[in-house]
Amino acid sequence: MKYQSIDEANRAVLDKIVGSAPFLTDVVPAKSVIKELEEKVILHAGPPIKWDDMTGPMQGSCVGATLFEGWAQTEDEAKQMLANGEVEFMPCHHVNAVGPMGGITTGNMPVFVVENRSEDNQAYCIMNEGIGKVLRFGAYSKEVIDRLHWMKDVLGPTLSKALQKTEAGLNINVMVAKAITMGDEFHQRNIAASLIFLKEVAPLIVQVDMDENDRKDVMQFLADTDQFFLNIMMATGKAVLDGARKIQEGTVVTAMCRNGKDFGIRISGMGDEWFTAPVNTPQGLFFTGYTQEDANSDIGDSAITETFGVGGFAMIAAPGVTRFVGAGGFDDALSTSNEMMEICIDQNPNFTVPTWDFNGICLGIDARKVVETGIEPVINTGIAHKEPGVGQIGAGTVRAPLACFEKAIEAYAQKLGLI
Amino acid sequence: MKYQSIDEANRAVLDKIVGSAPFLTDVVPAKSVIKELEEKVILHAGPPIKWDDMTGPMQGSCVGATLFEGWAQTEDEAKQMLANGEVEFMPCHHVNAVGPMGGITTGNMPVFVVENRSEDNQAYCIMNEGIGKVLRFGAYSKEVIDRLHWMKDVLGPTLSKALQKTEAGLNINVMVAKAITMGDEFHQRNIAASLIFLKEVAPLIVQVDMDENDRKDVMQFLADTDQFFLNIMMATGKAVLDGARKIQEGTVVTAMCRNGKDFGIRISGMGDEWFTAPVNTPQGLFFTGYTQEDANSDIGDSAITETFGVGGFAMIAAPGVTRFVGAGGFDDALSTSNEMMEICIDQNPNFTVPTWDFNGICLGIDARKVVETGIEPVINTGIAHKEPGVGQIGAGTVRAPLACFEKAIEAYAQKLGLI
Repeated sequence: MKYQSIDEANRAVLDKIVGSAPFLTDVVPAKSVIKELEEKVILHAGPPIKWDDMTGPMQGSCVGATLFEGWAQTEDEAKQMLANGEVEFMPCHHVNAVGPMGGITTGNMPVFVVENRSEDNQAYCIMNEGIGKVLRFGAYSKEVIDRLHWMKDVLGPTLSKALQKTEAGLNINVMVAKAITMGDEFHQRNIAASLIFLKEVAPLIVQVDMDENDRKDVMQFLADTDQFFLNIMMATGKAVLDGARKIQEGTVVTAMCRNGKDFGIRISGMGDEWFTAPVNTPQGLFFTGYTQEDANSDIGDSAITETFGVGGFAMIAAPGVTRFVGAGGFDDALSTSNEMMEICIDQNPNFTVPTWDFNGICLGIDARKVVETGIEPVINTGIAHKEPGVGQIGAGTVRAPLACFEKAIEAYAQKLGLI
Repeated sequence: MKYQSIDEANRAVLDKIVGSAPFLTDVVPAKSVIKELEEKVILHAGPPIKWDDMTGPMQGSCVGATLFEGWAQTEDEAKQMLANGEVEFMPCHHVNAVGPMGGITTGNMPVFVVENRSEDNQAYCIMNEGIGKVLRFGAYSKEVIDRLHWMKDVLGPTLSKALQKTEAGLNINVMVAKAITMGDEFHQRNIAASLIFLKEVAPLIVQVDMDENDRKDVMQFLADTDQFFLNIMMATGKAVLDGARKIQEGTVVTAMCRNGKDFGIRISGMGDEWFTAPVNTPQGLFFTGYTQEDANSDIGDSAITETFGVGGFAMIAAPGVTRFVGAGGFDDALSTSNEMMEICIDQNPNFTVPTWDFNGICLGIDARKVVETGIEPVINTGIAHKEPGVGQIGAGTVRAPLACFEKAIEAYAQKLGLI
């Protein structure tokens, strides 16, 4: 390889992460930037998976997307269509995208466009629908589909027009740097970043030429949706890490994702290849009426936030989230972040954490360190009901399975001719 | 007295603080709620003070207020009028108000109205003007006066109309509870609370019937003004502590304020009486071009935030502020809050601090404990230039002088016939 050592290659990958320049530039229909979505294609979270292997919430989301796109008129019709191969499935990650929970994305859903200006690449993610019955957790009732149509017809176009009033889009690094000082970890807690986003767009939205009731609805939705920034953070993590993995050497983890059946990772030295192992099931706290027994197995592309160095890795930045995910108090948050530093290479000076005595967030999971220490990456996650149609039932933490990292290191060692 | 002990009296005062129910209900011209301001009266920060004894920034603010009200047309004319007794001076605290830095408040300035529904009392505070050249720090250039007119003609009326669209005003306890989890200490750091306020009013402002350019200006001003919530917090502290000091027994500190010359405190057992001592001068960090030598002595009613239990007392809630006020890192923030607990009676369960392992903020400074331990209350403060007309030059911390507390305890002991 062109580097003197794996450490040197890893440093080059990290330099691209630290030097990244992600900007939120637009909100557009997914099919306008992902050509594959002009056909009957559904994007899903995690590594590749077939319809029969999908868990309840992902299947439920597919039903919802099929109804939303008008490909089917009834739930039964949709299920038949999905089961008999009329719709093609494809991982979000294969088309510069990421998706939360089921990750289900189709052509007419609006997506955030995040441009990474240091590497001239883009990434996409659908918008956050709020809480309760939502598509990403597998719900597909009329309320869910109606909201998706409103997001397509009103919310997306409004944000697009608002963003066009900026000179260069919104500088995401600035928003993240502010919000990490305000107790967000950007996976289960995005309340500060969502408010910072609102502060940026509210003065623009009042300048958009639009229906006054729609304007009020948009402003209210953004004011109410505490997790709105999560999906911007996901697209950012994807854009930054895809930029960094242009360097195809080293052992830096460049993606972690789950399809409900398999956990998949990529490392810089192995390009697009997935290394998978069966997912675990999150442990956490449940909304009233639900228990651990109702929990679906681990699912979603949102672990791109941990890959970037936030989420569970930044637990210490967000002691407010620990009680939401059942991860103890302040000392437990500190222990978690300190433990994650044992499998990371450095700390990112762009995003310093006051509660960590102003140290930077974790930078670069080294798959070698995961294997050597046996410390599995921790992920803060929402918990879906295992049956389709129910939605979110809690939040908690889950670990990435060690086997993914062992397989990746073995493959890279073979590629380098070391074994 | 009607209580068995001083401790029991103090507990009754604390119960009123914990049980308080402050709501932001309106923004109105000061003279509409403070009848004294129908005349040529200027309210100022701190205990009573004469024109000749005022420091530079307070005198500068008085000049600005005189120009704003149109009582004088030039700076010289204003100074003459202020010096020759044509204008009456009165502490904000004497008319249910508080004011930041100079605290200068006149009849046509809009004020926040905070209703404490548990005790059926109100408190008032002018609105935050943003940073740079601003009246409260002693600046009075055209830019300053023009902004005050815009606040009177546009910002105030818009917020009033927006608040009228709520059912009962904005529940301040909820906003404070959220923001303390997001790293605010509500004196030098209000960035989260200001965003939460924006989130509450933005959907209301888009419903106000008003000029579109004005609407854009209002939204932009609120989005840009990180310290906007400070003045709401000050009115809240005043409303809550004035409600609590209806109990006229005990040694709970119910006000701390500074006029640039004297530091003044009140304790529950001594009602309206001020106990004063010469102020200290804040130590801190200075904006480029300024040094400690330029610093004005301690000034402003904003120490009502520390009296309430936030500000410097809640340093641990806001590790992000420690570097702004030159107060070290995370461990220093922790030490500061722990030290302040030594002079407080309890912790307020309404506002738990994740970075303090979910303990409540400090509740009830006991003047006895200040005297016994010699620990002087710490205050996070802005620093004004000592010359009129310049404005803010830095931020830092300052201590309340011990002598105030010694005088208060002596007076209360005499009242109880103990000495």
